[in-house]
Parts: sequence; C-alpha cells; structure tokens
Amino acid sequence: MLSKKDVTELVYERKRQAGLSWASIADGIGMSEVFVTSACLGMNALPRDKADLLATQLGLPQEAGVVLAEYPTKTWNRDVPTDPCVYRFHEIVGVYGDTLKELIQEKCGNGIMSAIDFDMRVERVASPKGDRIEVSMSGKYLAYNAW
Amino acid sequence: MLSKKDVTELVYERKRQAGLSWASIADGIGMSEVFVTSACLGMNALPRDKADLLATQLGLPQEAGVVLAEYPTKTWNRDVPTDPCVYRFHEIVGVYGDTLKELIQEKCGNGIMSAIDFDMRVERVASPKGDRIEVSMSGKYLAYNAW
Amino acid sequence: MLSKKDVTELVYERKRQAGLSWASIADGIGMSEVFVTSACLGMNALPRDKADLLATQLGLPQEAGVVLAEYPTKTWNRDVPTDPCVYRFHEIVGVYGDTLKELIQEKCGNGIMSAIDFDMRVERVASPKGDRIEVSMSGKYLAYNAW
Amino acid sequence: MLSKKDVTELVYERKRQAGLSWASIADGIGMSEVFVTSACLGMNALPRDKADLLATQLGLPQEAGVVLAEYPTKTWNRDVPTDPCVYRFHEIVGVYGDTLKELIQEKCGNGIMSAIDFDMRVERVASPKGDRIEVSMSGKYLAYNAW
Amino acid sequence: MLSKKDVTELVYERKRQAGLSWASIADGIGMSEVFVTSACLGMNALPRDKADLLATQLGLPQEAGVVLAEYPTKTWNRDVPTDPCVYRFHEIVGVYGDTLKELIQEKCGNGIMSAIDFDMRVERVASPKGDRIEVSMSGKYLAYNAW
Amino acid sequence: MLSKKDVTELVYERKRQAGLSWASIADGIGMSEVFVTSACLGMNALPRDKADLLATQLGLPQEAGVVLAEYPTKTWNRDVPTDPCVYRFHEIVGVYGDTLKELIQEKCGNGIMSAIDFDMRVERVASPKGDRIEVSMSGKYLAYNAW
Amino acid sequence: MLSKKDVTELVYERKRQAGLSWASIADGIGMSEVFVTSACLGMNALPRDKADLLATQLGLPQEAGVVLAEYPTKTWNRDVPTDPCVYRFHEIVGVYGDTLKELIQEKCGNGIMSAIDFDMRVERVASPKGDRIEVSMSGKYLAYNAW
Amino acid sequence: MLSKKDVTELVYERKRQAGLSWASIADGIGMSEVFVTSACLGMNALPRDKADLLATQLGLPQEAGVVLAEYPTKTWNRDVPTDPCVYRFHEIVGVYGDTLKELIQEKCGNGIMSAIDFDMRVERVASPKGDRIEVSMSGKYLAYNAW
Amino acid sequence: MLSKKDVTELVYERKRQAGLSWASIADGIGMSEVFVTSACLGMNALPRDKADLLATQLGLPQEAGVVLAEYPTKTWNRDVPTDPCVYRFHEIVGVYGDTLKELIQEKCGNGIMSAIDFDMRVERVASPKGDRIEVSMSGKYLAYNAW
Amino acid sequence: MLSKKDVTELVYERKRQAGLSWASIADGIGMSEVFVTSACLGMNALPRDKADLLATQLGLPQEAGVVLAEYPTKTWNRDVPTDPCVYRFHEIVGVYGDTLKELIQEKCGNGIMSAIDFDMRVERVASPKGDRIEVSMSGKYLAYNAW
Repeated sequence: MLSKKDVTELVYERKRQAGLSWASIADGIGMSEVFVTSACLGMNALPRDKADLLATQLGLPQEAGVVLAEYPTKTWNRDVPTDPCVYRFHEIVGVYGDTLKELIQEKCGNGIMSAIDFDMRVERVASPKGDRIEVSMSGKYLAYNAW
Repeated sequence: MLSKKDVTELVYERKRQAGLSWASIADGIGMSEVFVTSACLGMNALPRDKADLLATQLGLPQEAGVVLAEYPTKTWNRDVPTDPCVYRFHEIVGVYGDTLKELIQEKCGNGIMSAIDFDMRVERVASPKGDRIEVSMSGKYLAYNAW
Repeated sequence: MLSKKDVTELVYERKRQAGLSWASIADGIGMSEVFVTSACLGMNALPRDKADLLATQLGLPQEAGVVLAEYPTKTWNRDVPTDPCVYRFHEIVGVYGDTLKELIQEKCGNGIMSAIDFDMRVERVASPKGDRIEVSMSGKYLAYNAW
Repeated sequence: MLSKKDVTELVYERKRQAGLSWASIADGIGMSEVFVTSACLGMNALPRDKADLLATQLGLPQEAGVVLAEYPTKTWNRDVPTDPCVYRFHEIVGVYGDTLKELIQEKCGNGIMSAIDFDMRVERVASPKGDRIEVSMSGKYLAYNAW
Repeated sequence: MLSKKDVTELVYERKRQAGLSWASIADGIGMSEVFVTSACLGMNALPRDKADLLATQLGLPQEAGVVLAEYPTKTWNRDVPTDPCVYRFHEIVGVYGDTLKELIQEKCGNGIMSAIDFDMRVERVASPKGDRIEVSMSGKYLAYNAW
Repeated sequence: MLSKKDVTELVYERKRQAGLSWASIADGIGMSEVFVTSACLGMNALPRDKADLLATQLGLPQEAGVVLAEYPTKTWNRDVPTDPCVYRFHEIVGVYGDTLKELIQEKCGNGIMSAIDFDMRVERVASPKGDRIEVSMSGKYLAYNAW
Repeated sequence: MLSKKDVTELVYERKRQAGLSWASIADGIGMSEVFVTSACLGMNALPRDKADLLATQLGLPQEAGVVLAEYPTKTWNRDVPTDPCVYRFHEIVGVYGDTLKELIQEKCGNGIMSAIDFDMRVERVASPKGDRIEVSMSGKYLAYNAW
Repeated sequence: MLSKKDVTELVYERKRQAGLSWASIADGIGMSEVFVTSACLGMNALPRDKADLLATQLGLPQEAGVVLAEYPTKTWNRDVPTDPCVYRFHEIVGVYGDTLKELIQEKCGNGIMSAIDFDMRVERVASPKGDRIEVSMSGKYLAYNAW
Repeated sequence: MLSKKDVTELVYERKRQAGLSWASIADGIGMSEVFVTSACLGMNALPRDKADLLATQLGLPQEAGVVLAEYPTKTWNRDVPTDPCVYRFHEIVGVYGDTLKELIQEKCGNGIMSAIDFDMRVERVASPKGDRIEVSMSGKYLAYNAW
Repeated sequence: MLSKKDVTELVYERKRQAGLSWASIADGIGMSEVFVTSACLGMNALPRDKADLLATQLGLPQEAGVVLAEYPTKTWNRDVPTDPCVYRFHEIVGVYGDTLKELIQEKCGNGIMSAIDFDMRVERVASPKGDRIEVSMSGKYLAYNAW
C-alpha cells in the first residue's frame, strides 16, 4: 500500500529524471503551482481526476493517483524550522504576528483569516536592485461567533 | 527612561481615547500600515523624523519619538503562538514551508527570500462568498554564496 | 487603563461578594453561559451593548464595559494543562483526535470543524449511575480550498 | 505477533479496497462510529466478540480479533497536534478550558468530567449558512474526595 | 481579595510562629494529614465548616476560610520536579508506570485508578535497618466505557 | 545478542500464548508481582537464579535468563506520560508532591524517601461503592548529610 | 517573613561589605566550604546551632538563623545551565554519565551513588602546566531492592 | 564501515562472553578505567596504539581499532537523564552548580574548570555505615580572557 | 536514488580509505575548505561542475555529483548541540549575541549580518602560549526596510 | 545593592544621554569594543581599575565600578534566539557546527576551540557590492586529555 510519503519520493524521482519543474507539472493538470507542489509533498489532496492525470503524466503507478487524492494528515517535525528559507517565514510570523492581528481585526472585526479557505501564490519580480520574491496569501475572513 | 514597551502602551492608550485607527496613524506620517503598526508594537524602528511626527500627532512625550526610532530587540514568547488569528499563519508556514522553498528555489536558484529587505501589505477584499484577507509579502531574493 | 486581566479579577470579586453564578450573569445579559464566562475570563469579546449591560449589572466601572468588548489576544501558558478538570479535555483530544478527523472527513469531505464560527454548551444530566456532564460543540464545516 | 499498529494498517487497507466507511464498519458490529473508529486506530479495546466479528467482516486474520480486544497503551507524539483538523480541538481546550472548569464546577461541585466513563458522538447538521459539525461528549461527573 | 497563595503563606507563617505540625493542624479539624496539608498548599478545597474551623484555630482572617473552601485550579511549574524529595516520586512513575498499568488492568480489567475519588496516607515505620516511609494510595477503579 | 527489549517481547508473546497472568509468573519464581513485572518490562534486574527459573518456566531461550539478570538502563520517553492509567500517577505527583515532602520531612527530618531501597504493592480492594485500587510504596528514609 | 532567597541576598551583601570569603565563613562555624556555601545559596539546611552562629558572625537578623536551618525546596531554572562554569559539569554528566553507571555497578553491584548521603570537596591544586581544580564527591552506595 | 556504535556493541558482546570487567580491559592496555570505558562507549578516542591493542586483546576486527581511535561526536539524548544512577549526578549539578562556581572562582579567579583537559576516577571505599562511591574529577583551571 | 546523507557517508568512507584531508579535497576542486566540507556534510550545494569534479576525484558514482549540486534542506537535531566542540560556538552566541547586535548596529545601522551572502575561514595560528583557532566570518550587511 | 542588570541600565541611560558609542566607551578605558560592550551587558568582568575608570568616565556611582568587576553569572533566556540579528549566528552554528568540528580537529587533533581563553572582533568592511560585517573569533586550542 503506497503511502503519501512513497508518492512524494516517486514524484521527486520522476521530476529529476525528466528534468521537470513544478510549474510544468502544475500546468499539465491545470492547477496552481503552490497547490500542486504542496499536494505532491503530501500536504494537500488533489481532486481525484487531477490526481489521476498527474499520475499518468509523470508515469506513476495508478495507485499513486488514489493516494494523491486522499485527505492528508498534515504533520511537521519542529515548531522552529531549521532550513533558512523556511525559517525566514517563521521569523516573519514572530515579528509581524501581532501586527497582522491588529490590521485584520481593524479592517474586518473580531475574527481571523482562514488557513483552510485559503490560496497562495509565489512569484519572482524583477527589480533593478535585485529581484524580489512575492508571496500573496488570500484567506476568507471568519468572524468569531457570539452566542 | 521610557522603554519600547512603555511607548506601545502609550500608543494603545491614546489610540483608544482618540478613537484612532492604525490606518489613520500610518497616514498621518505617510508610511504604510503594516510598518507603522509593527513599529508601534516595538518590532521595527521608525525613521527619526517619522517617529517625532508620530509622537507629536498622538500627543506623546517627546522621548517617545526617540524610543520609536531606536533599533528594537525583536522578541516573542512562544514558538507556537496561541492566539487563533496568529496561529493560522504559523500553520501556513508549517503546511506550506517546504512548498515555498521548492518554488522560491525553482524560480530563483539556491537562496531565500529576505525577511530584512522585506515589506508586507494587508488588505480586505470584498467577495460575494464572503470577504477575504489578502496578505502580500515581498522580500529580496538572496543567493547563497559559494566560495 | 484597565486590562482584560483586571476586569476578570473585578468580575470574580463581585461574583463572590454577591454570590452570583455564571448562569445568572449570563441570563442577566441574555447570552449563553459558555460565551459569557469565556468573555469574563478574557477569551472572547462581548458585543458592546452586552458588555455595558454586564458592567452595569455587576456594578463595575464603566471602562470595564469597553474592555469586555475589546478583541482579546487569546493566550494560555502550557500546552499540557495541569488542572485535572482541564487536562481530561486535553486527554480526549489526544485519544480521539485522529478519530474526530476520520469521522468529520468521512461525513463532510476534506476539511475541518471551525473553532471560530463555533458555539458550545455544557450541561449536567441526571443519571441513576451518577450524574453526567454533557459538552456539545458545534462548528461550521470548512472545506479546504483547491486552486 | 501482530501489533495494534499492524492491525490499524490492515483495517485501512481493507477499508480502502472494499470502499467501506467507518459508519458501515461500526454498524456491522452494532457499536458506535466514534468508539469503533478509535478502537481500529488503536486507542480503545473492543469487547472480544465484537473484535472477532469485525475481523471476520473485514476478512482480517483471526489474530487481529485478539489484538483489537487487547487493552491499548494510549500514546500520541506531540502535545500540540499539527494537523489543522485536530489542532482546532486543541485550540478549543486552550481557549475554553477554564470556562469548562468554571461551569462544570458551578453545576456539580468540586470535581471533573470523566474521560474514562465517557462517550462521544460526531454528527453533520445541515444549515442554510453552511453545514455544521456537532461533537457531543458525555462523561460521568466525578467528585473530589475529601478525607 | 486573598488568593490561595496568600492563604498558604499565612498558614506557613502561623505554623512557624506557633510551632505547629501538619499533624496537629489536621487533628484540630478532624481530617487527614495528607488532605489538610494539600488544601493548605492550595491543591484541594476543604469543606466550608472545616475551612472556617482551621482559620479560627490558626488565627487567620475570616476570609481565609472562604478561600480554603474554594475549588482550586491545580497547577505546577515543571513536568520534571527538581526537589530531590519530590523527584523520587516522579522517578517511581517513570520506572513503574507501565508495571502499574499492567497490574491494575490484570486485576480489574480495562480501566484506571482514579486520582479524583482518591485518598493517600504517609507514615513512618520503624525498621532495624533504618526507618522507612510508607505511602499508601487508594483510588476507585474506573472502567473504560464501550459504546 | 538479545536485548532487554527483545526479552520483553518474548515474555509478552509467551504470556499471551499460554494465557498466563503476571501473578502466576511471579508466583512461579517466588517473588512479588510488581518486581517481576517491572523486571520483565526491562526496568529491574532479577537475581540470576530467579531469572533462569523464569526463563525455564516460560520456555524462553537460556540467554533470556542472562539478560533478565543484567542491570538495566532505565529509560522512558516522555516526561508527561500519555496513557491515562499512567498519567493519573503523574498527576498525583504534581498535585501531592509538595505535600509528600512536607509530611516526610515533618515525620523524619530533612531527607527523602528512597526510590532505590524501595518496594511497592498493588492490590484490588472490594468496596460497596465500587472496587478500589490500593498502591502501597515503601522506601527507606534517607537523611541529607551535613558536613 | 524572610525567605531563603532574602537570606541569600543578605549573606551576599554582608560578604561583599566585609570582604569575606566562603572559606572564612565556613571556618567560622566549623563546617565545610561546599556545604556552608550551598546552605547560604538556599540549597541545604544548616543545623540550627550552626545557622544561629553564622547569623551572629555575619551580623544578620536573628530570623536569618531560623531560615538557614529550614529544610529547603531545591529548585533550579533550566535543565541545561547557561553559565560556562556550571555548564561544564552538565557536559561531564552527559559525556561520562553512562561510564559512571558502568563503573559504579561493576564495583558495587546493581545500585547507585546516593546524592543525599553525600559530601563534596573543591580544591585548587598547583601544577607546572597550570593549576587544576579537583572536585571530589563521595556518596553512599545504595543497592536496588528486589522483593 | 563500522561505526562507533557498532564497536560499542562488539565490545559489550565480547565482554559478556569472556566475562571481562572494565577494570581488566583498561589494565590490559595500561590506561584508566574511566577513560577506557568512556572510549568503548564512544565518548572518547583512544590513542591509536592503545586502540589496536584493545581490539587485539578482545578479538575484535582490525577496523575496530581504527574506529576506537577516531574523534567522536559526543551526543546524548535527553537533557534530564532518566536512569537513576545517572540522574543523581544531574541532580548534584543542579543542587551544587552555583556552589561549585562560587568556590572555583573564589580559589582561582574568574574562570572555569576545564572539561577537556580533564580526568576522573571512580572508587569504592569501604565504610562501617555502608560502602561509599568516590568520584574525583580534576580539570585544568582556565581563566577568562580580557582584551 | 542517492540522498544527501548517502553521499556524505560515501565521502567519509573514501576519505578514510584514501587518507584524505578536507583541505586536499577542497584544493582538488579549487574551493575553500569550509564550503567544501559543509557541502560534503549536506549543508551546502556545490556548483555542478565542482560537484562532478569532486565525485570523479573521490571515485564516487556519477549520481553523487548530481546530489552534491542539489539544493539542500538544512536541518539539525537539537537547539543545544551536545558535542563540546560545537557547543562552545553555541555558548559564544549565547554570551556575545547581544554584543554582536550592539556593535553591528552601531557600525552599520539597523540591520543584520547575512548568513546567506556569507563566507567563513578556519585557521590554526601558532602561539607561544599554545596554538589558537581563528574563525573568521564575513557576511553582507543587510539593512531593514522601512516602507 | 546594585546588580549587574542595574548597571547595564545605567550605562544605557548615560550612553543615550551623552550620545556615546561603544567604540568611544571602549577607547576611553583602552580595551576592545567587544569585551567592553559584553562587560557592560553583564556578560564579562572588567579588571577592577578599568571598571572604576569606566564608571568615572560615564559618571556612574562608585559602586558601579565594583559591580562591573564582579564575576558574572552568564545567563540567557532561550536556546533559539528570536532577534534576527542574533538568530543568524545561531543559524550559522546549526549549519556549520559539524564543519567547524571537522576542520578544527583536522588542523589540530582531538580537541576544541576554547570559549574562555577567547577573544573576538567585529568590523565593517567596505565592498562595492555592499559593505560586509567581519566577525573574527580566536580561541586557544584545547586538546582532550587521555589518561
């Protein structure tokens, strides 16, 4: 029985052998880079038809499509990530967490930005002083219930 | 000697009494909401003239301007934030951290998005299915050195 | 400037002096026991008119109404609670967490039960073998986005 | 010698192959969904006859029945769960833990809700604003001894 | 408003000044040493009449009786106690925890020893090879529910 | 080379196959239930002759006797145990730790109860309100040295 | 009511003002440096007469003698000490802990070195390659009980 | 390629089979018990000729000599050791850490005892009240630099 | 599919067999010791041509070159390193961290030293009082953005 | 009695009022910037004459000189620093820790770089691509003892 982790390894292997990018894999099934990458890393579930299409395009066994469509148990190892590229985002949450809360609640009221009804984009933006990365998150505003 | 924390309390007090928003405070000194809020919360340093202007506009003691312009020691209490509005961003880093790394490095090479040469915006976006929060981060791409 | 914590202490003091129950305090402002208690403990914000009414009924200073209506920063001290009455709920999440996930996702799809659009009731139920506590939680189902 | 963990994997495998739901597995042995799911996940012990029946119905080896009836050592990996669906319950305990204690003790006296003499139900409830999940817990009230 | 902690300090002060033992304080109100000591340390609630009697006998302010009868929030600072006298009990739980579980469940079935419907005694027992401490715990057996 | 852990698994296997209780295994070598169980779980060393006898009676390989008599390195995984049956003892140490210290030192002087020169019994005691578990610990009093 | 911590501060103050060494303080009451220092730091209890003598010699209030003779609750803040002088001992326990166990048990049998019936000396020893510190610990061997 | 851990297992195996003591192994290569034991446990590097001699005397493969002479990466699993024999030393560092610092610095100045230019002895000392363990540590005094 | 970890093991094996130093391996590909060593340990990515050259020179399989050029996920196990040689650097950060911040910001303004656009050298320097290690770090100054 | 922390606050206050730099304070007493700054932050002890000179030059009370010359207990709050400027050094230790160990031991033998017989410099170095920070550490090589 293939696990999510097994499928992630298979994707990495095929991606390296075929010299594919995440962008091309995502394009191949008509979904966004962020979502498809996270699904291949075992952190999201692809719709079943997209999962099957991805498995076919990468030449994975059919069972891989089933697995990619399963609902994942999202898990990570450490509260403070060590890899510098990931740590910087942890740092941003530490430095700007209370600011985000102040502004979300000033603009919308007592509530939060959903991390479930959520999407994200990552882009490279050319700039004369050195290119920049732009990360755009969008989540539905959810108001606290009072009862 | 006023501390960063003392000034944060003074700002909150004046803000509540005068019924001000972070948006209006930021506008008053011609800087962005995110940056000004984070500086008022002690997580960034305002340029000295902006700091003095903010102190004047809020009717804070002159020393507050000095303090708002000092370089902060950024500190937070827990690796896993408890407030739900902040936790959701921690969760996003946990769920999408490796995805961010994959895509940043696919688009730019072996490196990271800077959290120092960095800016961020928070906006409310109307939507028929319920308004959304949009958080846009932009950081300079920094390539790892090889020597 | 009164803090949430100061108001909690004032409520406890008045409650003890006047021999009030949480039930009667909640009834006095026409809201539920769970919500009113949590707001008095600083974990939720009362609607402004309810907050003022509560302050009046308990004989608290007017500022207490302002504070009770402010959006709280929800915080707790330890991941594993020590008090036995609270720990048992931590244990339930540990023992039944994966079961809850399996059943929520079997019944609704890939998503979660919201802890924001959420309400809860606590009741005592008589039983010949010894009375029971019934805790009923209700949260909106939120489906993961795919994009 | 099969372990609890081995049996959990066997159940998952059979469940996927046969396209079964937890609801149907529980119905098949005449017990509740929550209890049967938790037992299949290794967190509770089925009565021996139910365990054998479940093993037979799923086509598991006979030893699986023995294992499902054994008393488990309940264990989990992290105090703060990472999966969003489980984390929300952790958050509820953090936000409402002291409220639960206040109300249980107001209604019953100095004591706790048992997590041992305990049962739970999970249901989906249709609602015009979006379906809701209802989780109902019932535990025996236990009074602290004084001696 | 006196807190549990204030009353603990008052008891220690009176106990030292009057040269009292926990044994005599407990005898004075006709309850056990363990229970009365734990209540004075803020970890249990005395019945109201006993609390008032204890306050009178130690010459504490009347409010102390109210506080001693309040339901405590039981809390401790570290999972691993540092004081050697307390640590040894932590060690015993580490070394013998699984043994206790094996024997309790062999003798009674799938369940636990209650720490709520519970009492404990501590005694010194003379012995030629050196006196011994005997700690006797008694808790109601609670069987897991199956539903 | 058999490890302590290997022998524990062998004992469990034989115990299940032969339907043995810890009580009967302990009786078989004329030692107490608690001690023999803890030795089989790798937390104590049996005297060599008892270890050989136990190996013979359970039909274990001869090397198992050697291993059961070796001095163990006592180790456990988490400071806060998760299994409810074990956790309750952790809770008792948290709630009553300081009380135990007060009473041991009141009865004996400045010192501790040894966890090395130590024994323990577990018994089921019938009671009209529900059977009880009694755990009796006895450890030598050790006085702190002053020099 | 003076606490152990208050007395420690008083001792430090007097020691600095009078230019005293721990050696001379210990000599003044005829006990060892290590023991007297640890008692002044709140980690051991002086015999009552020695405590009174020390208080008199340092010119402390009479109550300080009472406090120095009280049985301390030994507590420290972090499992890994940060001060380099203390950390090196933590490191020694990490590096040589298992070695100590092997040799103690090879020389004496299944047991431990007591940290209660224990004494320690610290000395400076001249050496041509640079002076050395010698720390000598002596603790009673305690054998594990088998029952 | 043999690892340090593999060699430790080989040593234990040979030691058990041949009924050797650490004392005799150390004598066999003319070095101290503590050092040789710690090297066999992977916490120190033997000089190459001693390593080869030890390998020959125990009948280990030649590669074991290479490995025993390699510089180890010293690592341990938990900051608070669980085994009682090792824990007591952790406790001694907790209780006497500040005392050691006071006395080392009183005798030598601002500095530390080295844990690198360091040696240690463990001995059993007969005593009418019960034999004692003596642990003697000697480390070079290192003065802090000021520049 | 070879992992970074597999390649590290292969390098160690070849290095030991051929008696190579890190210095000679680095020289062989014309890069610095620190960078090449860190890349071989899986903490940096070699430029592809250098990676292939290194693989050839050490006689590693061709795939090793691909792996050495892949962007690593940098990870470590514990926040407080245990090996004494590594711990000393952790201690330096603890003792001098705030000093580094004061001086970097005094010399350059509100910003940090980059750990990405970064290089480091390690050298042995002869000295009459005993040789010294010199570690020289150089990182680009990055100024915080204000917007 | 002034504490190290009090003196740090006094230095900051005088430094701000007089507009002094750490460089000028260090120059004023003829010692290095890093050492003087760390001593003012409570992490090192100034020689007594330097301490008095510093106190005089900054116009601090005479007692401040005594305190600056006292041997500090070095302490920090978190193993993982949060301030970005300090965290980068923590990250460097994480990423390059094993590399440092490999190279130190290749160049010198089995030992470490001392953090006690240690000095450090921080400099700004102009560079056309952006100025750089250079941090140079020098510590005595200490060889492990074998005995």
